[in-house]
This record gives sequence, structure tokens and C-alpha cells, in this order.
Amino acid sequence: MPDRNELALIDWIRQRAASVPGLQLGIGDDCAVWQPGGSPLLFTTDVLMEDVDFRVDETTPQLIGRKAMAVNLSDIAAMAGRPLAALVGVAIPRSRGFEFAKQLHEGMQSLADEFRVAIIGGDTNTWDGPLVISVTLIGEATERGPVRRSGAKAGDWLFVTGPLGGSILGHHLTFTPRVREALELHQLVDLHAMIDLSDGLAADLHHLLDESSVGATLFEETLPISEAAHRMTDNRSLLEHALSDGEDFELLFTVSPSDGTKLLSATGNATATRIGEIESPLGCRIRMADGSLRDLSRGGWEHSF
Amino acid sequence: MPDRNELALIDWIRQRAASVPGLQLGIGDDCAVWQPGGSPLLFTTDVLMEDVDFRVDETTPQLIGRKAMAVNLSDIAAMAGRPLAALVGVAIPRSRGFEFAKQLHEGMQSLADEFRVAIIGGDTNTWDGPLVISVTLIGEATERGPVRRSGAKAGDWLFVTGPLGGSILGHHLTFTPRVREALELHQLVDLHAMIDLSDGLAADLHHLLDESSVGATLFEETLPISEAAHRMTDNRSLLEHALSDGEDFELLFTVSPSDGTKLLSATGNATATRIGEIESPLGCRIRMADGSLRDLSRGGWEHSF
Repeated sequence: MPDRNELALIDWIRQRAASVPGLQLGIGDDCAVWQPGGSPLLFTTDVLMEDVDFRVDETTPQLIGRKAMAVNLSDIAAMAGRPLAALVGVAIPRSRGFEFAKQLHEGMQSLADEFRVAIIGGDTNTWDGPLVISVTLIGEATERGPVRRSGAKAGDWLFVTGPLGGSILGHHLTFTPRVREALELHQLVDLHAMIDLSDGLAADLHHLLDESSVGATLFEETLPISEAAHRMTDNRSLLEHALSDGEDFELLFTVSPSDGTKLLSATGNATATRIGEIESPLGCRIRMADGSLRDLSRGGWEHSF
Repeated sequence: MPDRNELALIDWIRQRAASVPGLQLGIGDDCAVWQPGGSPLLFTTDVLMEDVDFRVDETTPQLIGRKAMAVNLSDIAAMAGRPLAALVGVAIPRSRGFEFAKQLHEGMQSLADEFRVAIIGGDTNTWDGPLVISVTLIGEATERGPVRRSGAKAGDWLFVTGPLGGSILGHHLTFTPRVREALELHQLVDLHAMIDLSDGLAADLHHLLDESSVGATLFEETLPISEAAHRMTDNRSLLEHALSDGEDFELLFTVSPSDGTKLLSATGNATATRIGEIESPLGCRIRMADGSLRDLSRGGWEHSF
């Protein structure tokens, strides 16, 4: 049975929740009731765990809540969808108190508001364990359809929407999910395949290649490196950070060469940077600045040289 | 970045996942893509936490997974909906290993199969914390519409679908969610209001009364008491167990007197037992076997006599 604080928190969340067209019943009954429009719906869920995805003592509850919403928005962006509605499950350490729980929810709600996402349901719990947040996000595909990981074709140009590496220094909490950029790109060109970068460029590129049954070559010279990667003080190179650091939450996508040309002439490098090419031979390579080719594994590259 | 075990587990789950009409893309991309039929959709989410909702060492991973699916099915049942699809987020203690994670998922999948629910997405993680499972379940309303908590009217008869109390002895892990019963009832009579019993009869009845702005009197004599309540060895009475123990996962509902008569003549007590009456005066009372009336609080009754 929920305790007094849980009920107070649920009431507070219920008052703040925005609506979505077709919502017949939001928070407060056994289920939410929602009649979406006729488009195919997109569903994604992510679980964030204390000391894995964030450290409570090194950030604010608002930023933790924000991240829980943002990583799901990034998945909707990765299919060039429009986010619509969310369900939020939380297990909050009892010791953190009511204010902490409110601030956590405020972080989620503010990003939800920014992207016009209605929080239509949830499950709010306190316990003696660590903080866990689970968000399920529902979006809709545009009339151009959802962009899958599996549509890359040999000859496609490979693009990324922003600089990579060093996310651990703060970007993983403060990034803006590329929802708007994805919708703009989807209007402008025919996106063949797309994925958001959560596991790191090398790993996520492999996912995209696996699903598309193609290979790729990356161009070292054009890989955009984040300012944060320069501030990393371990002994790995900038390139290694760009290839292997996770949680960039930029979009990696492929388009035909003619659409690639169109994209660059329309927006320059403002929206996306060309970082490689899709090829028939399976596997993944990187063309270094000196012209040499190296094999690229999921974890970054093979340390065999 | 997911480790090898997580990826192996996701592959294994992906192979086992069933489909649902209109599913264009299941597990394996950034989002699931699903075009549901034209009915209003029902959404619910529940988070289950180790040592709060189950004890790992006192049960099996299958039963824990089963419960995570079952409590959500019970919420769909409470609106007389048809369950369709689920997303499953888990945070599994690393120490439990791969077999544990598979068995956990098998418990979820087998109940999903029984109720023809497709697992269309999820997020599978291992960590050093306790076990947490979050399930989001999507259903659809029937042509008669979803049954809310808010539709009870003065004069309605109050019914419950099964015996109450003592769930902690095992029922909370093994109960069958009343999805089929709810659909049958919804066909037979006009269900005015319904809720599933998770917090305990007294607490959940108060939720229903609050949302409907009515009151009620329960009849002590007809309250069905579970066999498990008889086996409880604390010093509380059978009645207290029936009123206060949580997680019965039976349905509590109200219908007009004429529909109540129709229901009893059609099914006897096989489907549901009449346990009280809805009244205009707010608040909740219980008519004891000796004819006396007592006030009933959310927690059970007022210990003021």
C-alpha cells in the first residue's frame, strides 16, 4: 500500500501532467486511456540505475530525471518520430525524501514539456534500495515512416549530427535529444538508416551495419571531436574517445550520395558532418589521416598495431 | 555499453517474442513500431522491487517474472480491456547470472503467451544493485469502453471476484489476473466502476468511492475469506485480513441492482460475490453480522471500539 508521501507525490505529479490529443484518461485510474491518431506508433523503454547511469551525489535530481526522459527521446529521434506520451516508473530511496522526488520529477516534466510529451501514467515507489527510473516513451512515425537501422546501402554516405567523446564530463546529463534535427533531416532527404549513439560510435555503427548487412569505412580526418574529449585526462587519444566513449546521443545516419550532396549544400556542416561511407564488404574500417586503413572493432579499434 | 551476457540475453528474448497484429518492428531497433487497431488504448506500468514485492531467496525467478507481468495484466483487467503488448525493463543483479535472467524472462513470457501479449520491446541491464523489474503493458478497450473507477452510483451493488486475505502466503505470486472474467462480466452487464485489489479491499474501495464521489456499506456476512487468510498466524482476525491484506488481485466492481440480479442468476456466486452497496452518504461503513454498523478506514477499520 502506498504511503502518505507516495500518495502526495502522485497527486502532485497528476496536477502537473500535460495532455496529448486523444487522451481520454490520464494519471489516476488503473490505466491511462488514449486514442492515438492513425499513424504507426513508436515504443521505447529505458531503465536508468544509480551509480550506473548517474551518481546522485555528483549531480542534481532534476538532471537525473531529465536524463531519464532524454535517453528515451533520443530513441524516438533515432527513428525520426514525434514523441507523444510517457509512462514513468520510479523506485526512490526512502532516505532521499519528498523534495528530492519532486525535483526528480520536475527534471522529467520540464523536458517532457519542451518536447510536448504528456506523462499519462506511472508507478511511484519509495524503498530502501538505490534510485531506479524507468521511462516508457510513445511516439508516432511521420508520414515518411520510421527510419530503421536496417536500411543502409552500399555507396551511402555516413553522417553524424554532432561532436563525439567525453560525454562523461557532463554531456550525458545535459544533452538535447536530436528530435527536431531528425524531423528536419527526414523532411529534407531520404534517411536510409539511423541510430542514436549511446554505446559509442564504433559499437553503434556495428549495430547499424549488422542490421543492414553492409560494411563501412570511417574517415578519421572528418570525425567531429567534442571539446569535452579534449578535456579528458586519461591516456587514450582523441580518436579513441570519439570512437569508444558512450552516451554522445548524437544521430548516426546514412543517405544516398545525391541526398548527401543536397544535405551539405542546404545546411553546410551545421546539421550533420559526413564521416564515412557504406560499402558492400562486411566489417568496419577507418581510413587514417595518413591514408592507411585499420580495422575497427565494436569497442573502438583493434589494438593490434 | 551492454556486456556480452546482456547481448546474449537480448538475442534470446528476441527469438522468443511473439507478435501482435499490426506490429511492424519488434525488439532490435531503437523503438518498436506498431500500428494498433482503431480502439482506444490502455496503458499501465508497474515497477517491482526486490524485498518489497518479492524475496528472491523465497521463490523462483519464474514466479518473480510472472508476477511482474501479472500485476500489469490485473490493471488492464480492472478496465475490462484486452491486453496486447508489453515492454519490459529489468535491472538484474550481476551475481545472479545468465540462467537466473532467462528464468525470470521465461516467467514473464509464459504468462504473456497465456494472455496473447507480445513483448515488443525492453531494456535489459545487469548491475550490482538489487533486482528491479518494470513492465509497461498496453491493451485496448472493448467496444463497450473502458471501465473506470469513477462510475459508481448510489444504489449500485458491490461485487468482488474472489476470496480475500492472506495473499502473502503465495497468492501474490501465483494469482491469475482476472482478464477473462472482466471481459465476460463486461459482456453480461453494464459495469459502472471497477478497480483491482492491490492495496487491500478497504483501501481500494476508498479509491473507487473517492473517484466516484459516493459512499458504501460492506456486508461482513458475505465477504469471501480466502483459505490462506485462515492459515495466517498473526493475531489479526479473518475480517481484518480480508479488509487490509494487499495483493488479492481480485476485481471490485459495481453494477445496478437489476444487473446485479442478472449476474447472480446467470452465474450464481461462481464469478463474483455481492459484498455491499453503494450509497449517497460519503465514507465507508461495514455492517457486522450482529447488525451493528462500523466506520471503515482506508487501512481496515478504525480501532476505536
